[in-house]
Amino acid sequence: MTRSTAADDLILGLTRVVDLPGLTAAAGAPLGADDIAAVIGEADRFCTEVLAPGWQSADREAAHYANGRVTVPAQYHATMKAWIESGWQGVAAPEAHGGQGLPHAIWTAVNELASAADMAFFLGPILTAGAIDCLDRFGTEDQKARWLPKLVTGEWPGTMNLTEPQAGSDLGAIRTRAEPLGNGRYAIHGQKIYITWGEHETTDNILHLILARLPDAPAGSRGISLFAAQRILDDGTPNALRCGGIEKKMGIHASPTCVMLFEGAEAEMVGEPGRGLNAMFAMMNAARLAVGVQGVGQGARALQLAEAYAEQRVQGGRPIAQHPDVARMLNEMRAITLAGRLLALEAAAALDRHHLLHDEAAATRLALLIPIVKSWCSDRGVDVASLGIQVHGGMGFVEDTGAAQVLRDARIAPIYEGTNGIQAIDLLVRKVAKDDGAAMRALLAEVAATPGLAAAASRLQDATATMLALQARDADAAQSLAVPYLEACGWTLGGWMLVRAAAAAPDRAPLAAFYLARLLPRATARCLEIEAAHAGMASVTAPAAA
Amino acid sequence: MTRSTAADDLILGLTRVVDLPGLTAAAGAPLGADDIAAVIGEADRFCTEVLAPGWQSADREAAHYANGRVTVPAQYHATMKAWIESGWQGVAAPEAHGGQGLPHAIWTAVNELASAADMAFFLGPILTAGAIDCLDRFGTEDQKARWLPKLVTGEWPGTMNLTEPQAGSDLGAIRTRAEPLGNGRYAIHGQKIYITWGEHETTDNILHLILARLPDAPAGSRGISLFAAQRILDDGTPNALRCGGIEKKMGIHASPTCVMLFEGAEAEMVGEPGRGLNAMFAMMNAARLAVGVQGVGQGARALQLAEAYAEQRVQGGRPIAQHPDVARMLNEMRAITLAGRLLALEAAAALDRHHLLHDEAAATRLALLIPIVKSWCSDRGVDVASLGIQVHGGMGFVEDTGAAQVLRDARIAPIYEGTNGIQAIDLLVRKVAKDDGAAMRALLAEVAATPGLAAAASRLQDATATMLALQARDADAAQSLAVPYLEACGWTLGGWMLVRAAAAAPDRAPLAAFYLARLLPRATARCLEIEAAHAGMASVTAPAAA
Repeated sequence: MTRSTAADDLILGLTRVVDLPGLTAAAGAPLGADDIAAVIGEADRFCTEVLAPGWQSADREAAHYANGRVTVPAQYHATMKAWIESGWQGVAAPEAHGGQGLPHAIWTAVNELASAADMAFFLGPILTAGAIDCLDRFGTEDQKARWLPKLVTGEWPGTMNLTEPQAGSDLGAIRTRAEPLGNGRYAIHGQKIYITWGEHETTDNILHLILARLPDAPAGSRGISLFAAQRILDDGTPNALRCGGIEKKMGIHASPTCVMLFEGAEAEMVGEPGRGLNAMFAMMNAARLAVGVQGVGQGARALQLAEAYAEQRVQGGRPIAQHPDVARMLNEMRAITLAGRLLALEAAAALDRHHLLHDEAAATRLALLIPIVKSWCSDRGVDVASLGIQVHGGMGFVEDTGAAQVLRDARIAPIYEGTNGIQAIDLLVRKVAKDDGAAMRALLAEVAATPGLAAAASRLQDATATMLALQARDADAAQSLAVPYLEACGWTLGGWMLVRAAAAAPDRAPLAAFYLARLLPRATARCLEIEAAHAGMASVTAPAAA
Repeated sequence: MTRSTAADDLILGLTRVVDLPGLTAAAGAPLGADDIAAVIGEADRFCTEVLAPGWQSADREAAHYANGRVTVPAQYHATMKAWIESGWQGVAAPEAHGGQGLPHAIWTAVNELASAADMAFFLGPILTAGAIDCLDRFGTEDQKARWLPKLVTGEWPGTMNLTEPQAGSDLGAIRTRAEPLGNGRYAIHGQKIYITWGEHETTDNILHLILARLPDAPAGSRGISLFAAQRILDDGTPNALRCGGIEKKMGIHASPTCVMLFEGAEAEMVGEPGRGLNAMFAMMNAARLAVGVQGVGQGARALQLAEAYAEQRVQGGRPIAQHPDVARMLNEMRAITLAGRLLALEAAAALDRHHLLHDEAAATRLALLIPIVKSWCSDRGVDVASLGIQVHGGMGFVEDTGAAQVLRDARIAPIYEGTNGIQAIDLLVRKVAKDDGAAMRALLAEVAATPGLAAAASRLQDATATMLALQARDADAAQSLAVPYLEACGWTLGGWMLVRAAAAAPDRAPLAAFYLARLLPRATARCLEIEAAHAGMASVTAPAAA
């Protein structure tokens, strides 16, 4: 079978835009262009053949809760088995525990292909990857030896239990308690919500990572520790935890979003007391990158469906793909999706550069890119999904085509793993303002040196200076402009990635030109918004108080 | 009970922005500000008390099809009865047939309130209003006498049977046949799809309006005539038509979207042979205006839900409504919704000015505004609904709050009644280019004279000239820019309406200032897109062919 367009673009991006061969060679574990193409091609085959076909039927069957049991679509038992057998869970996991130790950029590419194929299913493996990362960094050698081999194969999925009803964006408000049992173990009491794949019977066991407070812990975020609890204890008995219900959601219907009740569940601490949020934040780059990639994946699926429909639907004597406005929509979908795909790979490569080469500049670049990738790519995933519906006309609103499902599924990504509003404030306050704009200026200097982007980079430099001045003077006013600022960054960096892709592969030049002419002005609009709002800030903040 | 914000804004708009009192006085049927406030207040009460409460349960129950029967949510039988008893169906219908003969602007306001309250239900009455309009203009006196009284009370809903599987945007491809029966009647044979409220048992009868071809009709759009068929014939027997199934849709679940099978259904011709599409086009202004208003209504519902949630949800020690980025989202929702609301009223007043005062300039203005209102307001309804979800955070993705339903429901409006892409081409080719831009130039001259809008109007004048030149030279290239052009018009005219509202009511000035600073740049972006794309048109159109 032929490779998908997405896989071709991912191979181009990995090999010739973010130079993974060069990066891995410098790290002493060279991965050549042919190796990369082979891995991505194989992932593409698995996603296309195993994950993609059941995506709509899984949505229709959906996850259900009754009498304390969670059932996922029946086909997911076979899917999970195939996933475990495939070995893809461990592709970027540590070799010491059974993984293949490949770069995170490879996992990022797999994530895009798999999320596009079946987002609801793949949320499970994404969380497992996060748990692997967490234990590898914060677990004891004993914990790693006991848990990582199971997680790395995927036999035991991992979950993240963070949110509580009163503690959403504000995790410092967590109330779940961990009482010491005296044997180095703890009993967890509390209620967690929005726990993705929190309970199911597709595997023999589940490892829950849980944020909770020790009895003597201070209030707020510094009193929170991280714990791990097996669903089934080593002696084969069920742990004292259960699912209290699942949410009826707009999308990702096949993914059970659980209320988890911990009723004295036996757990171990992971990492140090009071450092639970730090452990979570340490995983956050990968987790937020993964959500941005979900947006790209949903855009890619929307594009695939829209292209196929537009080629076969004839109106006015020709396929609608040839109608100028439909062609415009398809080109927007293509340009945005490729830009997001490459921007995500750029962030993933920065993560690898930091991890493999201990490059601190790469860590700084990564910190800057993460909120942009998470927000811009997830918002664009929603936009592209909506364009995909529009290409289908009336059929797009009917569930049969799948176009509507893509939008329903994609709409979660701007919300979870830190809302896009939170991301924008993170970008402004913790990333750009932290070094008084130095890292952003350095990034934009690179953008400015790219053909066709000097003016856009210069405008964004000015907007950055405005935001920094405003942040110093009136933090609330600055934060009310944080989303427009992040959007300006996203649209500008998307253009940067496409121009670089065109330089590497001239057949991408038309799409890059399309982007610069037709999408880059959206960055201008956001910079104008910042300047205009800044100029008239008194009147602009007024209605908020009304 | 207190009036809703939407009703207050509608009253402001009708009385002091589009000057319905002045317009009706000039027409010799004066409607004072107090009269208007009383009517809108009463409509608001009906919508809030009768329609709004069952909106979510109706969505959950949904419409179903089994064994040839369509069932709508059980509560809709009582809702339909209340609707008929209320008399609102006839508010703008001809007095000669039982209506109240009020201006279309009043109906437009009722439409917004009712669509916000329960869009799925209100699609029925909107279509009935279209059927009333159609029969009043094209029916014989005998047809009017027999049908209009039933339609005007709402006892017999009307439907529109246009689309067929192969004939969507291209209605000229219709195949449904009408065979003369020799008694002035016809037998209709064919299949129609996407027929909103095409079959249900909430009323004793339904009047179907159907586009079909006479046996000797020429191919294409000039061979199409309009027919009317009762679901139940005068002798009480069922007509030879039935529902063959309903669509499973992303939203408006409670509204049955029917496949209608005409199997020799007895029908009468309405209007002249071969003039069916003309009759449809004659109703199109009102129908397209109504869809734009649905977008406004969905935005209003999203805003109402988001405001309530943001006031009561506390994170970080204060209601999230006070968090700067949430306040920003709420202000965007407010500004866009008010702009759309007033723009729709401006179009409705132009329609009334044409009808009541026989003002041809008003007809020209209306023709220009209709595609903008239909597209810009329906697209913004989707945007505002999506912002509403975002304000809710995780709860927005869970169906309980209703925020997700608003987006699911709103997403149809950019598609039906002519996709927004079709609207944009209509604006460019049939409206702006028709008089070489004269009507648009006149409108923009008014905009330019409005405080704060001179630069935006001037930029749009330039974009208009560019579009006209391009349309003359390369129609496909121009049409690929038609949507950006319509968007530029919408964002600019939205600002125009808000500045006028602020002039009429100074308490709206902060929202107008917010709009000009923070949303009007989106018009600039679209104009920049037109200029950039025009400058580099060769490379821009290239990927379409790839």
